[in-house]
Amino acid sequence: MQVTIFPLQDFPIINPGDDLESILIDELRKVDMIDGDIIVIAHTIVSKAENKVFDLSKIKPSSFALHIGDLQDKDPRKIEVILRESQEIIRMNERVLITATKHGFICANSGIDKSNAPGETVISLPDDPDLSARRIRDRIISSLGKSVAVIISDTFGRPLRTGTVNVAIGVAGINPIEDFRGRKDLFGYELQSTLVARADEVTAAAGLVMGQADEGTPVIIVRGVEYSQTDASATDLNRDRQTDVFR
Amino acid sequence: MQVTIFPLQDFPIINPGDDLESILIDELRKVDMIDGDIIVIAHTIVSKAENKVFDLSKIKPSSFALHIGDLQDKDPRKIEVILRESQEIIRMNERVLITATKHGFICANSGIDKSNAPGETVISLPDDPDLSARRIRDRIISSLGKSVAVIISDTFGRPLRTGTVNVAIGVAGINPIEDFRGRKDLFGYELQSTLVARADEVTAAAGLVMGQADEGTPVIIVRGVEYSQTDASATDLNRDRQTDVFR
Repeated sequence: MQVTIFPLQDFPIINPGDDLESILIDELRKVDMIDGDIIVIAHTIVSKAENKVFDLSKIKPSSFALHIGDLQDKDPRKIEVILRESQEIIRMNERVLITATKHGFICANSGIDKSNAPGETVISLPDDPDLSARRIRDRIISSLGKSVAVIISDTFGRPLRTGTVNVAIGVAGINPIEDFRGRKDLFGYELQSTLVARADEVTAAAGLVMGQADEGTPVIIVRGVEYSQTDASATDLNRDRQTDVFR
Repeated sequence: MQVTIFPLQDFPIINPGDDLESILIDELRKVDMIDGDIIVIAHTIVSKAENKVFDLSKIKPSSFALHIGDLQDKDPRKIEVILRESQEIIRMNERVLITATKHGFICANSGIDKSNAPGETVISLPDDPDLSARRIRDRIISSLGKSVAVIISDTFGRPLRTGTVNVAIGVAGINPIEDFRGRKDLFGYELQSTLVARADEVTAAAGLVMGQADEGTPVIIVRGVEYSQTDASATDLNRDRQTDVFR
């Protein structure tokens, strides 16, 4: 058993409104895709293609956004976009603004990012990353005839541990969580760790070759992973708030 | 650029007190190691070789351990070992006992595990996982002449997100955190996400092929990763408690 991870080299820069599916399929034709491949796509290019780019010059911050911008010494117009994309503020102080996004992902700044966005613009998460992943997967299957999975990723900080890792925010054709309940260990005991965050393992692995800086490689192929196919959602990776002792 | 991940197949079962380094080197001779390879080792076999196996029949639970055992309907002798391996209780209710281990890792049950331990025994984390990693790495370098890195991993649950992932609890020859501060994105902006948890990306990737059940493959080779070498500790991955808004 072997897993290989490689980027689509020289992937074109995606601009707002571009037909990402067509561009992606042209690039995928340059590598030999095989059934079972998982395609990990940085959400920024999906968001851009879906016009989830906000021109800050057209954003009027609320008084609350002005207040937070003042508190954190940040652009209140960016704060305004963060608040609009959130459903709840989870933690806020003079350094951090951690929200639950409208999808339920808990992350810094609702996932709003300035990196890799041109001019005075910011990029949000896609409106429905699972739907985006499904649409991309359907196009790949119909164009290339390969049964692949698609994961849309973002880079999240983490409670308790330093440093960022890539996580799955949209999935298609892969169950984000592998359920090993009932399986036995070497000595016949029930396994204790039974729900494995497979999609987050895949995105973290993709992070090993996904450049974040100017050499950006936003599309990564992960090959050889065992996974199960379902219609599950990446939001299944969000912990139930009632049982999360750290929320 | 390509990363490949593969297990050492048919790795022998490690028993308490075994000479893990010698066994590992014999197994590594069967694959062609190359400079830069990262060897990810499930902590359980390291702990076993270091005799960090506790016979519950010899553990006398304190009254506090009896209380928690009663509250959680768990073996109070296992709770006793968990408490002895902890420095602080971070969260506790009728379901979970989340501690800071003596090393500072925050995880369920101080990392004490019954899985893959024979009889009425439990396994703890190694006393000094960085030291274990360094010792293993030194033996590999002197025996095989390859400049490798070693990561000792455990499987942790996570706040906010469902499902477990493998994380690094001991490192040698790899900086667990890559610092991209000062690097610029496509449009010349400073990157926002600048501290990448490289060692945790590697362990999560290793999790894609590290069987948890009876087919256990506790040693995984991760090849082709760009990383920097330092004398850093895996405890650098523990967030500073003062700035962790979820602690």
